[in-house]
Amino acid sequence: MGQRPLLRSCTPGTRLIVSSLVFAVVLLLTPSTPAGAQKLDQVPAVEALTYTLNLAWVLIAGFLVMFMQLGFALLETGFTRAKNAVNTMAMNLTIYPVGLIGFWLTGYGFMMGGIHQWPSLGAFGLPHGELSVRIGHHMLGLIGFGKFGLLAVNNDPASLAMFLFGTVFMGVAATIPTGAMAERWKFSAFLLYGFFMSMFLYPLYGNWVWGGGWLSQLGVNFGLGHGQVDFGGSSVVNMTGGLTALAGAMVLGPRIGKFRRDGAIGLLAGHNLPLAMSGTLILAFGWFGLNAGSTLAASDPRIGLIAVNTMLASAAGSLTTIFYLQQRYNRPDVAMACHGLLGGLVAITASCAFVSPAAAVLIGIIAGFLVVGSVLALERRFRIDDPAGAIPVHGVCGLWGALAVGIFADGTYGDGWNGIAGPVRGLIEGDFGQFIAQLIGVSINAIVIFGLAMAFFVIVERTIGNRVPAEVEWSGLDSLEMGSEAYPNV
Amino acid sequence: MGQRPLLRSCTPGTRLIVSSLVFAVVLLLTPSTPAGAQKLDQVPAVEALTYTLNLAWVLIAGFLVMFMQLGFALLETGFTRAKNAVNTMAMNLTIYPVGLIGFWLTGYGFMMGGIHQWPSLGAFGLPHGELSVRIGHHMLGLIGFGKFGLLAVNNDPASLAMFLFGTVFMGVAATIPTGAMAERWKFSAFLLYGFFMSMFLYPLYGNWVWGGGWLSQLGVNFGLGHGQVDFGGSSVVNMTGGLTALAGAMVLGPRIGKFRRDGAIGLLAGHNLPLAMSGTLILAFGWFGLNAGSTLAASDPRIGLIAVNTMLASAAGSLTTIFYLQQRYNRPDVAMACHGLLGGLVAITASCAFVSPAAAVLIGIIAGFLVVGSVLALERRFRIDDPAGAIPVHGVCGLWGALAVGIFADGTYGDGWNGIAGPVRGLIEGDFGQFIAQLIGVSINAIVIFGLAMAFFVIVERTIGNRVPAEVEWSGLDSLEMGSEAYPNV
Amino acid sequence: MGQRPLLRSCTPGTRLIVSSLVFAVVLLLTPSTPAGAQKLDQVPAVEALTYTLNLAWVLIAGFLVMFMQLGFALLETGFTRAKNAVNTMAMNLTIYPVGLIGFWLTGYGFMMGGIHQWPSLGAFGLPHGELSVRIGHHMLGLIGFGKFGLLAVNNDPASLAMFLFGTVFMGVAATIPTGAMAERWKFSAFLLYGFFMSMFLYPLYGNWVWGGGWLSQLGVNFGLGHGQVDFGGSSVVNMTGGLTALAGAMVLGPRIGKFRRDGAIGLLAGHNLPLAMSGTLILAFGWFGLNAGSTLAASDPRIGLIAVNTMLASAAGSLTTIFYLQQRYNRPDVAMACHGLLGGLVAITASCAFVSPAAAVLIGIIAGFLVVGSVLALERRFRIDDPAGAIPVHGVCGLWGALAVGIFADGTYGDGWNGIAGPVRGLIEGDFGQFIAQLIGVSINAIVIFGLAMAFFVIVERTIGNRVPAEVEWSGLDSLEMGSEAYPNV
Repeated sequence: MGQRPLLRSCTPGTRLIVSSLVFAVVLLLTPSTPAGAQKLDQVPAVEALTYTLNLAWVLIAGFLVMFMQLGFALLETGFTRAKNAVNTMAMNLTIYPVGLIGFWLTGYGFMMGGIHQWPSLGAFGLPHGELSVRIGHHMLGLIGFGKFGLLAVNNDPASLAMFLFGTVFMGVAATIPTGAMAERWKFSAFLLYGFFMSMFLYPLYGNWVWGGGWLSQLGVNFGLGHGQVDFGGSSVVNMTGGLTALAGAMVLGPRIGKFRRDGAIGLLAGHNLPLAMSGTLILAFGWFGLNAGSTLAASDPRIGLIAVNTMLASAAGSLTTIFYLQQRYNRPDVAMACHGLLGGLVAITASCAFVSPAAAVLIGIIAGFLVVGSVLALERRFRIDDPAGAIPVHGVCGLWGALAVGIFADGTYGDGWNGIAGPVRGLIEGDFGQFIAQLIGVSINAIVIFGLAMAFFVIVERTIGNRVPAEVEWSGLDSLEMGSEAYPNV
Repeated sequence: MGQRPLLRSCTPGTRLIVSSLVFAVVLLLTPSTPAGAQKLDQVPAVEALTYTLNLAWVLIAGFLVMFMQLGFALLETGFTRAKNAVNTMAMNLTIYPVGLIGFWLTGYGFMMGGIHQWPSLGAFGLPHGELSVRIGHHMLGLIGFGKFGLLAVNNDPASLAMFLFGTVFMGVAATIPTGAMAERWKFSAFLLYGFFMSMFLYPLYGNWVWGGGWLSQLGVNFGLGHGQVDFGGSSVVNMTGGLTALAGAMVLGPRIGKFRRDGAIGLLAGHNLPLAMSGTLILAFGWFGLNAGSTLAASDPRIGLIAVNTMLASAAGSLTTIFYLQQRYNRPDVAMACHGLLGGLVAITASCAFVSPAAAVLIGIIAGFLVVGSVLALERRFRIDDPAGAIPVHGVCGLWGALAVGIFADGTYGDGWNGIAGPVRGLIEGDFGQFIAQLIGVSINAIVIFGLAMAFFVIVERTIGNRVPAEVEWSGLDSLEMGSEAYPNV
Repeated sequence: MGQRPLLRSCTPGTRLIVSSLVFAVVLLLTPSTPAGAQKLDQVPAVEALTYTLNLAWVLIAGFLVMFMQLGFALLETGFTRAKNAVNTMAMNLTIYPVGLIGFWLTGYGFMMGGIHQWPSLGAFGLPHGELSVRIGHHMLGLIGFGKFGLLAVNNDPASLAMFLFGTVFMGVAATIPTGAMAERWKFSAFLLYGFFMSMFLYPLYGNWVWGGGWLSQLGVNFGLGHGQVDFGGSSVVNMTGGLTALAGAMVLGPRIGKFRRDGAIGLLAGHNLPLAMSGTLILAFGWFGLNAGSTLAASDPRIGLIAVNTMLASAAGSLTTIFYLQQRYNRPDVAMACHGLLGGLVAITASCAFVSPAAAVLIGIIAGFLVVGSVLALERRFRIDDPAGAIPVHGVCGLWGALAVGIFADGTYGDGWNGIAGPVRGLIEGDFGQFIAQLIGVSINAIVIFGLAMAFFVIVERTIGNRVPAEVEWSGLDSLEMGSEAYPNV
């Protein structure tokens, strides 16, 4: 073996210890910029109080969104089989730390690096950078570049609160594919995916819509309404997660026994329906944070309408599936009622601040029908296996939700959004440009996010592989992949 | 079959699609009144900030109360058998969308239609209407009439926040009967009940106490203290839910095997006690929203006392049952400890803002004894089958809680409540009139709510029927009524 | 038997009723002092609003911490066997009411009795008392004395909010030992412990660090930095809980079958790993309240950094265990990933407001290694049986977290903390005194808390006994000790 460099001669464990300590110490020595908090002393007391109230609002909303990780964990675990329960839970639990560190290192910088200030949070001009391309006299933002590792904004409360809020949104997007790819995904490949998603894929599209990137500037640059508008993330969070799930499920292929040679479709029922239903209720709870928090301001009285629209759309989505399936199959379908509730939530997310309660109900009703239709089409027509219904709920309803802004925005909110004066108006208010902007937004998501996700999964497939061996899948991932049974002792 | 009108010729599914779209489009075209948010610009900045802080408070509290749906779902599912787990969960999950849509369509209008303004939320005069009856020179409000479908208050943040807050309270009341009527209730009859409860029954009494109706005016009209006072809903929410549960359980009759011919009582133990205990803790968490949110104002420093009283009463209720049963049967009874904790919460709800911590403890202790006594009496004496203990916990302790205001209110809070100057005083402060008002309030609840609920269940019994066939009950509602097993794959 | 005094002649049940009513009535008759709320009228409107915003913040944070009871319940129940599931849940559920009443009666008074005011909450001078000892011209606070039963501060919102916040912190500390002592602890001995912990043990050290006691005055009296600084409770809450757990587990001894005569270690795997993972996520959610709430002020923009540090440290802790064990054993260890996540949370708790995000990551990484090392050492070297990993997670990481303040505090926060001007600085900023203060703090915890806990458990051992008989342990505590099976009907 001859001489080996110092680090190589250690055990892997020691190497990990040394390298992580070195890494952290380097970070620690980087100076931070005092900012934000100090400047609050220089504004009138009411204004400073407003800023901190808004800061608290963003944090509380962020906590609620973080809690959605448990919702996804229970939903997906309930819809999978007992032999894979630990693996499904573990993916949902692990995506939180993996995504957090990835988003902290580069994701937040790519996504929000170009942001100069968040006025509602008392940010008075942050260090920022955005890689842009000039087309004619238009600057199109491609990706943020700054705030990596929170280094320059260490002491800026607004940046920190937005990091937390951004992280938990990313966490939602990143955990969606674990539902569609459950019961057959290699854990190491999943970990790799976690870093790819949090460090690059999610932030990319996030920058384009929320970080000042080119989709948000379709209005300023090309006169298309307010550019792409996505209030809480129908496209940024859900469609991104849903289409990544689709790419992953296509590359992975169906679970053994799902689609038989004779065309029959195996049931492969989940092992704990009450668990899945609990997850649904937790998601409906956390979703209030996702949507109402996206004002970034408790001082914005629009939070009332947003929260009401959120709950109304979820109810409409759920009831639609219940009555539709009751009519069609003469029995309630509880799993579908969950999908419908979540589909309604996903669909209202982009438009919750811009539409009336009646429109929210209508958006939810349509989402309900879309969920039923796409669950059936995905399975029967496209023969894609998605144990937790992630693709219909997040992908399809996310697309619908992003378009719905361009249809139903009623001209009562959004003055100044993306730099455009006047409220956001959809087709019903005669603004065709806004609809076009939304259409461009979802098309780009479908092309770029789906394309990049597909590329990633294909590359992984050709290197370390995405899928566990068939014998692991047969025995269950818990015993052979995770080394722990879910219920060893009952 | 000859010629049929267009809609008839479609499949049921298409009919549902068409009719729900038509309905929603009609709503969408109705003009909304700009209100509320605009007017915030016209008040001083501190005042506007106070309003939005209070709005945020009401919403956050409402989110916590919404989360109680999961608490009830787990509590009731834990206390029922595995073969009915999906059904019990499904009722608790479905009541949320059903109730939401019902409350949106008519319930909120009946309950809060008569409200002119909520001062803490910056509501500056809302469109309102209340059907009243004149007796002498007194106007007695009977039912609200306005704000249906949120139409006229589309853009008023206060009305929207109060809709959310009112909806989740209604959701609590509406989900209580699913505990007492579990394991034998036909799902279609339950859905019908959900609309009846949310659209009419709950809003009726709610209007009388919280919507400006006649019980709230017993002080102004007849000099009885501050009229009926119910801070967080011991009577409005819990007693209404508990007595509806009682009527339902009486009409349904006991589960097969509960009361045998020889007088013996079957145990029919629930299938997952840890689940029920988890539900209890979730309810104790959400209850903070129910009570502390009922100030409708974070700017009211009384929220501190309210939250403390809430937790102290729950502790007293739980400890009372633990020590009492330890004394009597020489072993802890965990289910009863849960009931006692919830009984304490229910009992303190009406008075939490008006009494001292010591009184809260006393109210909780008495609730603990009442729970034990009424659980035993209900089963042994009245032979009424209530799998989750909903009637003792919510009905009996709700009644006790409403009376407790009239006894323990200590004259430190409530100036201006229901239009009466001076704080609320109970018997211990010498106000006999307040106690009479409370007595009238609970009597009316016992007569009108119980009566109407009974009438509803009897009518359903004679038409579509309330109860599943015996063979469905034997096999479990999950397989035959819901079409999904809870744990198919363990 | 001759003549017996009146109370003796009753049944035990009646005796309990009579005595608890008498007790409560006595309390009820004690006059309360009007305070706090009234005085808010006398300050400028912005200031009053700031106070109530902060009050609401403390309450909301307190609700989140209360919810951690469910997290601990699920975590510990998942890590224990099915035959003890009700017992484990019951301890976690019962500690809440037991601790609440105990803390209300004496605990809060011992801990916070010496506090004169909380400036962020609009407290304008509270009745207070602290038993102190004079050494030279230094006054060293030993224990608070006042506010028992909340009597004198009945109507002071700040005291009430702080009671709620203090109670739920105590609840966390008190529930930690139930994890280490699970599956063999006699329920009556546990109840006794609950009162000892909430009424005396936790408040004692709590007073020293947070109640104005001598450890907090090490700076003022002896020039050691800012005295012991523990922002959210690494030492006060977690180390106290963890060392009490250690004492208890040592006195109890291991579960039957854990350590065999031949030196082999039994696995005794928990019965529901997804439950334990759910508990972990709930704890991570509630921890935001623990840390960010500890500003006692939403008006303090530091809440942003605190929340971000909290989540980063948890991620670092969890990822460290995942990658370390993957390296070492070539498979993920899900239980250890949970321990690592919690260890990161515990470790950052004391320093979350004083360090940079990079330092938070470093603190979390070290916590991750400490968790793995101490779990293995505890089991293999010290042969102490701790089913839920409470001692490594809370004891060891709590100690590390308290020390970390003295190392990494970066001089950007803490001006005026414990009466010392200027920010808190650790070793990296050259303040050796602060590190000494922290070292004294954890040493005192290790000596006094561990010593008193050990004394308590030994006394109980020699009187009523701590441990269930072997046959109860064999059959499971649920059937013989609790009288209820967890899953009787599956």
